[in-house]
Amino acid sequence: MPIDYDRLDPYQFGGVLPSGCRYDNAPVIILPVPFDRTTSYMSGTRHGPRELLLASAQVELWDEEVGADVHSRGIFTLPEMDLSSATLDAAMATLQRVSGDILDHDKFLVTIGGEHSITSPIVAAAAARHKGLSVLQIDAHADLRDSYLSQKHSHACAMRRTLEHAKVIQVGIRNISEEEIRALPELQTTIFYDWNMREDPDWIDRATGALSDAVYVTIDLDGLDPATMPAVGTPEPGGLSWRELTTLLRRTFERKAVVAADVVELSPIPGLVTPNFIAARLVYKLLSYRFGLGGRSAT
Amino acid sequence: MPIDYDRLDPYQFGGVLPSGCRYDNAPVIILPVPFDRTTSYMSGTRHGPRELLLASAQVELWDEEVGADVHSRGIFTLPEMDLSSATLDAAMATLQRVSGDILDHDKFLVTIGGEHSITSPIVAAAAARHKGLSVLQIDAHADLRDSYLSQKHSHACAMRRTLEHAKVIQVGIRNISEEEIRALPELQTTIFYDWNMREDPDWIDRATGALSDAVYVTIDLDGLDPATMPAVGTPEPGGLSWRELTTLLRRTFERKAVVAADVVELSPIPGLVTPNFIAARLVYKLLSYRFGLGGRSAT
Amino acid sequence: MPIDYDRLDPYQFGGVLPSGCRYDNAPVIILPVPFDRTTSYMSGTRHGPRELLLASAQVELWDEEVGADVHSRGIFTLPEMDLSSATLDAAMATLQRVSGDILDHDKFLVTIGGEHSITSPIVAAAAARHKGLSVLQIDAHADLRDSYLSQKHSHACAMRRTLEHAKVIQVGIRNISEEEIRALPELQTTIFYDWNMREDPDWIDRATGALSDAVYVTIDLDGLDPATMPAVGTPEPGGLSWRELTTLLRRTFERKAVVAADVVELSPIPGLVTPNFIAARLVYKLLSYRFGLGGRSAT
Amino acid sequence: MPIDYDRLDPYQFGGVLPSGCRYDNAPVIILPVPFDRTTSYMSGTRHGPRELLLASAQVELWDEEVGADVHSRGIFTLPEMDLSSATLDAAMATLQRVSGDILDHDKFLVTIGGEHSITSPIVAAAAARHKGLSVLQIDAHADLRDSYLSQKHSHACAMRRTLEHAKVIQVGIRNISEEEIRALPELQTTIFYDWNMREDPDWIDRATGALSDAVYVTIDLDGLDPATMPAVGTPEPGGLSWRELTTLLRRTFERKAVVAADVVELSPIPGLVTPNFIAARLVYKLLSYRFGLGGRSAT
Amino acid sequence: MPIDYDRLDPYQFGGVLPSGCRYDNAPVIILPVPFDRTTSYMSGTRHGPRELLLASAQVELWDEEVGADVHSRGIFTLPEMDLSSATLDAAMATLQRVSGDILDHDKFLVTIGGEHSITSPIVAAAAARHKGLSVLQIDAHADLRDSYLSQKHSHACAMRRTLEHAKVIQVGIRNISEEEIRALPELQTTIFYDWNMREDPDWIDRATGALSDAVYVTIDLDGLDPATMPAVGTPEPGGLSWRELTTLLRRTFERKAVVAADVVELSPIPGLVTPNFIAARLVYKLLSYRFGLGGRSAT
Amino acid sequence: MPIDYDRLDPYQFGGVLPSGCRYDNAPVIILPVPFDRTTSYMSGTRHGPRELLLASAQVELWDEEVGADVHSRGIFTLPEMDLSSATLDAAMATLQRVSGDILDHDKFLVTIGGEHSITSPIVAAAAARHKGLSVLQIDAHADLRDSYLSQKHSHACAMRRTLEHAKVIQVGIRNISEEEIRALPELQTTIFYDWNMREDPDWIDRATGALSDAVYVTIDLDGLDPATMPAVGTPEPGGLSWRELTTLLRRTFERKAVVAADVVELSPIPGLVTPNFIAARLVYKLLSYRFGLGGRSAT
Repeated sequence: MPIDYDRLDPYQFGGVLPSGCRYDNAPVIILPVPFDRTTSYMSGTRHGPRELLLASAQVELWDEEVGADVHSRGIFTLPEMDLSSATLDAAMATLQRVSGDILDHDKFLVTIGGEHSITSPIVAAAAARHKGLSVLQIDAHADLRDSYLSQKHSHACAMRRTLEHAKVIQVGIRNISEEEIRALPELQTTIFYDWNMREDPDWIDRATGALSDAVYVTIDLDGLDPATMPAVGTPEPGGLSWRELTTLLRRTFERKAVVAADVVELSPIPGLVTPNFIAARLVYKLLSYRFGLGGRSAT
Repeated sequence: MPIDYDRLDPYQFGGVLPSGCRYDNAPVIILPVPFDRTTSYMSGTRHGPRELLLASAQVELWDEEVGADVHSRGIFTLPEMDLSSATLDAAMATLQRVSGDILDHDKFLVTIGGEHSITSPIVAAAAARHKGLSVLQIDAHADLRDSYLSQKHSHACAMRRTLEHAKVIQVGIRNISEEEIRALPELQTTIFYDWNMREDPDWIDRATGALSDAVYVTIDLDGLDPATMPAVGTPEPGGLSWRELTTLLRRTFERKAVVAADVVELSPIPGLVTPNFIAARLVYKLLSYRFGLGGRSAT
Repeated sequence: MPIDYDRLDPYQFGGVLPSGCRYDNAPVIILPVPFDRTTSYMSGTRHGPRELLLASAQVELWDEEVGADVHSRGIFTLPEMDLSSATLDAAMATLQRVSGDILDHDKFLVTIGGEHSITSPIVAAAAARHKGLSVLQIDAHADLRDSYLSQKHSHACAMRRTLEHAKVIQVGIRNISEEEIRALPELQTTIFYDWNMREDPDWIDRATGALSDAVYVTIDLDGLDPATMPAVGTPEPGGLSWRELTTLLRRTFERKAVVAADVVELSPIPGLVTPNFIAARLVYKLLSYRFGLGGRSAT
Repeated sequence: MPIDYDRLDPYQFGGVLPSGCRYDNAPVIILPVPFDRTTSYMSGTRHGPRELLLASAQVELWDEEVGADVHSRGIFTLPEMDLSSATLDAAMATLQRVSGDILDHDKFLVTIGGEHSITSPIVAAAAARHKGLSVLQIDAHADLRDSYLSQKHSHACAMRRTLEHAKVIQVGIRNISEEEIRALPELQTTIFYDWNMREDPDWIDRATGALSDAVYVTIDLDGLDPATMPAVGTPEPGGLSWRELTTLLRRTFERKAVVAADVVELSPIPGLVTPNFIAARLVYKLLSYRFGLGGRSAT
Repeated sequence: MPIDYDRLDPYQFGGVLPSGCRYDNAPVIILPVPFDRTTSYMSGTRHGPRELLLASAQVELWDEEVGADVHSRGIFTLPEMDLSSATLDAAMATLQRVSGDILDHDKFLVTIGGEHSITSPIVAAAAARHKGLSVLQIDAHADLRDSYLSQKHSHACAMRRTLEHAKVIQVGIRNISEEEIRALPELQTTIFYDWNMREDPDWIDRATGALSDAVYVTIDLDGLDPATMPAVGTPEPGGLSWRELTTLLRRTFERKAVVAADVVELSPIPGLVTPNFIAARLVYKLLSYRFGLGGRSAT
Repeated sequence: MPIDYDRLDPYQFGGVLPSGCRYDNAPVIILPVPFDRTTSYMSGTRHGPRELLLASAQVELWDEEVGADVHSRGIFTLPEMDLSSATLDAAMATLQRVSGDILDHDKFLVTIGGEHSITSPIVAAAAARHKGLSVLQIDAHADLRDSYLSQKHSHACAMRRTLEHAKVIQVGIRNISEEEIRALPELQTTIFYDWNMREDPDWIDRATGALSDAVYVTIDLDGLDPATMPAVGTPEPGGLSWRELTTLLRRTFERKAVVAADVVELSPIPGLVTPNFIAARLVYKLLSYRFGLGGRSAT
């Protein structure tokens, strides 16, 4: 392009920095996947990645908790993946191929949804590269149905599909069906129910302790208290506070090797930017914990 | 109707089940009363029952805390009661007659408001059938004015009217006028003020302990923290968290005979479904505690 | 139901009248079909029937133009048809069967969408009962694609499918693809393009003149000027004014035998009730023209 | 007040001018009456005066059509009238007394509603001071019911009450009940129905010709096309365009002595300021026609 | 980027085509300038380019009026220009330099605002390259103030600044201050006032006739009727209908050499996409008139 | 004004009382400053004072925690200060002069913003009158930049400017830049970071202990958890709960002489009144703690 001027890029996580960074030299890759096909109640997760990235330009680059500016390491945001005209099976295959390629390039991949069904192909790709991978899932819903409305890849089945590739530790669960309860004995999952998990003051240690060394983190935003995160398709009262969530994540990053992560199910509410901002901050927290721990935190 | 097809009914609590249920065989009756006459700040409770029922179709039927699916017992939703052209006295009389009839049929009645003034005629009906009935009220406002804007049946007088039929335990109160404070010594009410009730770690036991054996539960949604429940006419900061509210309710149901309940003052906010969903979930929690305790809870 | 009280029914078109009416004695049947599967831009037509019916309770029963109260003749609203878990082919078959049954009962059927794809099965049912049926379509979009995103029953193909059963007169068209233009010579359709149809002052006579004696009317609400009707998924500037639309409809009803109609693609905007009200008024206009012409109009 | 600084007053029509003006020296008095008691569908007219005044600060002071800056003549805005705790009869009496006093001071009074029921007491005051006064009403609704929900002063009866003081010319009517139609022969009213009034190209001359010399103008904002004015409680498709309305008003001001006016039923829509601005501009148009005609208009 | 997949680009006008196009081979360049510094009433034009481009993906590529698909010729969208940290003078200089470069590359430049102050530097660039350039301005506001709030480059001065480079024909004006009226005699501008321009049925011919051969078109969206275009900072009732605007533009393109254009002042309303869509359609209309006239229009 | 009637004044904090009060006899002065010039993300704080005052009419006058009705002491609300056309330096000087005058009259001044940059001139005025004044700041952002976008008086520099007049205790901080961290050693500030301040159960005592005897309180509403207070320009997850904030404030008022306060950065969200109400309640809490402590609290 033969024209030069300062430009905005509302689609680069954290905005455009003077230095700029390319795919090649960035340790962090953000992959936006506005996949929104099976959401049942209120649709809108297709707008999630765009609004999260838009809000991300306001996130302070310095994280005062870990004492580091991770942005300067290099965060490269890929263009939105378009899966709208693919069959469901083809969409899942594409996601597995693309995320596998990114992992092969030794990147820390953070995928932004879109609905939760995008998690299983990415975990499949990660599990193929990291023996014994386990998954830490923060969520209101167990998502363990074998199929939902005749659909194997519904968001309501996201973790049942994921379990085909790795064991899962599920935290904050407060919505599970009788059918899922009955299937539990045969599934390689450990559930921390929202209603009683805090009765053990060591629940965070127990949850991180149940993980294997290599970990994939998937955060369905409805795992948070809907007071903090109302912009989700099927809100459930209760759930994790921001402090609980960040403490759990920090410990996980301190003790395990987190190989990739996703943040899904942001369903933006027109006229209310707060949830988009919180989701962007959460993505940046993941990056700060991944690359910044060991820095000099503010005190 | 000579035509047969699958149908949606957005005004059946929990949606339409294959089995279907009728008034006769349902132990639970939902009575929607979109009564909205005296609300002072922002009107809109007339839309409350409709939006709560609409959201209720998304509530998971299985309650993981008590380990039961109460929906299958039979929940029948009556049509919206139309009190719009009645005088206030006639409206109150109709409510008392109708709720009395339902109680006579041995149903567990949950009334959905609408404004808080609907509580006193239902309590009158319940007290006539249950000697020594007491009322557990969750609310931000004491609602103990003797009259408000020359009106005896204003929502601001809801509990003063109710006290004519039963004693009241008031929880979460953080709005009370000087006039009400002066009247307190003569009223059969026990108030747990939001600002200091948690200083006693046993406040829940004290609150349930103050109730008699037969209990009516009335939940003004503004008793919840407005972070969780912004869709009310006169929000007050502070208030109960979801966890506090459900713990209080569970203990009440475990220890007392709850004979009926209401959930009032939902004032839906256009474009924001989260509060409607939380209100629907709260109604279902009441039913799960009423019929499901003793089941095998998730662990 | 052994309990008696005045009730609201937000799901009966025009609200509940003292007299009440049943399916059997009502000449008009309203069929709400919240079908919303293939809408591409902003989803939301699933909420269309509910909001239209809700607004309909505010429509004045007396139509001053035709001088009649059609509501008293009897308008019966069927429950919402649930097609959410059917395959697309099964959904279309059900719609054809149900609308056929209603027509067999000699009813004037008005279907409320939901997306435009519901039109072709109803036209199929009507064409099977009325030889030489033609269709009057008000719309911004030609909807003549043979398939869209590999889908034969997409709303973008609604009229291509309809043409398999009846010829179509299309009015207000201002969105048509090159692919559709090329297919036109082989299709039994007459298009009145929005950009030039008014150059002939007799365009309304020409449009009604092109219809056969038995007519089905389908109104995609985006045929109206979006200033009047913004609550549609793919708004297009230009389009018919309320006066143009009602004049066209009145002439059609005066000169032809309209056997059924639909009003589709209402996609309600949270916080803005005006479009819902206009859609409800339009349905009532159809009924007033169908049953009231010949009355004593206001002057 | 011993403190001096530049101040904003969002509740002075047109904002605060350097010169300032007082009640005494202002020929124009704006009286905001946020009266909202009987509105049936969507409440909100109580917020109308405030939002109209807020928007009025953006209105350009120079009117290019009449070639004058009426603001500099002096427009004084009274504080909002509080009728919330009065009985309906007392409220009407207060309005009649206050508007009578203002007229006695030889002011041009423009009242801003609030609901339409405020018109009749002001007309009563004006008729007592101007023999043979007639009323020009722009409205979608005839408002000729003798009572509505047992209420004589409902907005649905506004013009029936007004007819007790002056004859009325009603323009743009497209909602009238059978009961009102039957009462027409005995009422001193001339109705221009929206559906056919334009068939006579001289309708504006006929409408102004039917007025007596002294005229009161009442504009229910729903008389405008809802495309232009969606912020009303009971929108009706059709209605006057901005051009039709301003032409009708200009002719009326040119040919008659308009003694006072009101603009009522603004029911602001959160997040949409356009209607508020249009309402403010309409008030300023009234003033420009009243005081500016004869100026040098832009050409 | 070593990863390949189908991608969405919400910031390419019209979306991503299989063929793709580059700056070099595209005859049309879209330049988004989210400049928003001096807007007085409601800010938000900074979101205009983004929302317009987002909506543009829904615009039908085939224009049925001119009978052409202009998109296939090649439309390249530059990244958003970031002027947020520049001084006002530097911002204007950058805009003039960049637009000049684009014009030097023989592109048809359409700039998307942002506020109206961006017009004058682009006109300066165009006038330097096209002798005797004139400007066709569609607008509610004359924007002829010499300065506003001590600011020479306020949007309220946009056309006063533009007049330093070219004469201007102003259409749809309905807001002009006394100060501007007084300055008119010395300014090289011809104003078509909204209130009377239609009294001459040949006003469109007169307006296009007043233009020189080389024309720059600037469309402030508030020139449209706010019923059609409510998403502007200072809406004014009246204004051009879609039909009037497109007829005026078509004639201008048929008779003159339009060298560049801008569409400014889109101030998106959260939750209401219709205006964004209309603005996108307008941009595409400009392109269709520029490159498609002579095609085979639909009839 | 020669006309007498009950009036509403939406611009008097707490509404209009029968007694009324004047500047002279009121111990509390509310100064609304809708200053909004440098806010970066979403503008809107200019609407903050108006919406806060509007909501304040619903605040219960009796504070049940301190057992007092402070409103009856006299709260006088000044008109909105208009700083829109002043240079930044002049605006700051005016604010310092006006607040100084008010303090000289021995008033308790509560300023309502508007953006945070208004704090430093008021602190300057207070520090000149109270030797050794310290500032208690509740905020998400440190606001310690020396300049931001070349601007010394940006809201992002609010506390850096304030530090020129008094030392500051900053509570709830969770957004600070690397540049600010580096400047800390030379600044007279003590920061309580949100992420770890609660690890010391005595943090409130430590925070109040760090204050000098004379204290100015500045509350940026984004210091609260955005679940409670979403109506801010740059929300940050985490932050103080209502209970933490009120406890901190109560202790401060109990132990120190608070001489003035401000509540800033309310950026109202259209359609959502809850945050406005909470902000109004917070202002009243400040007054109750200032004048009511020592009363008989509810128990």
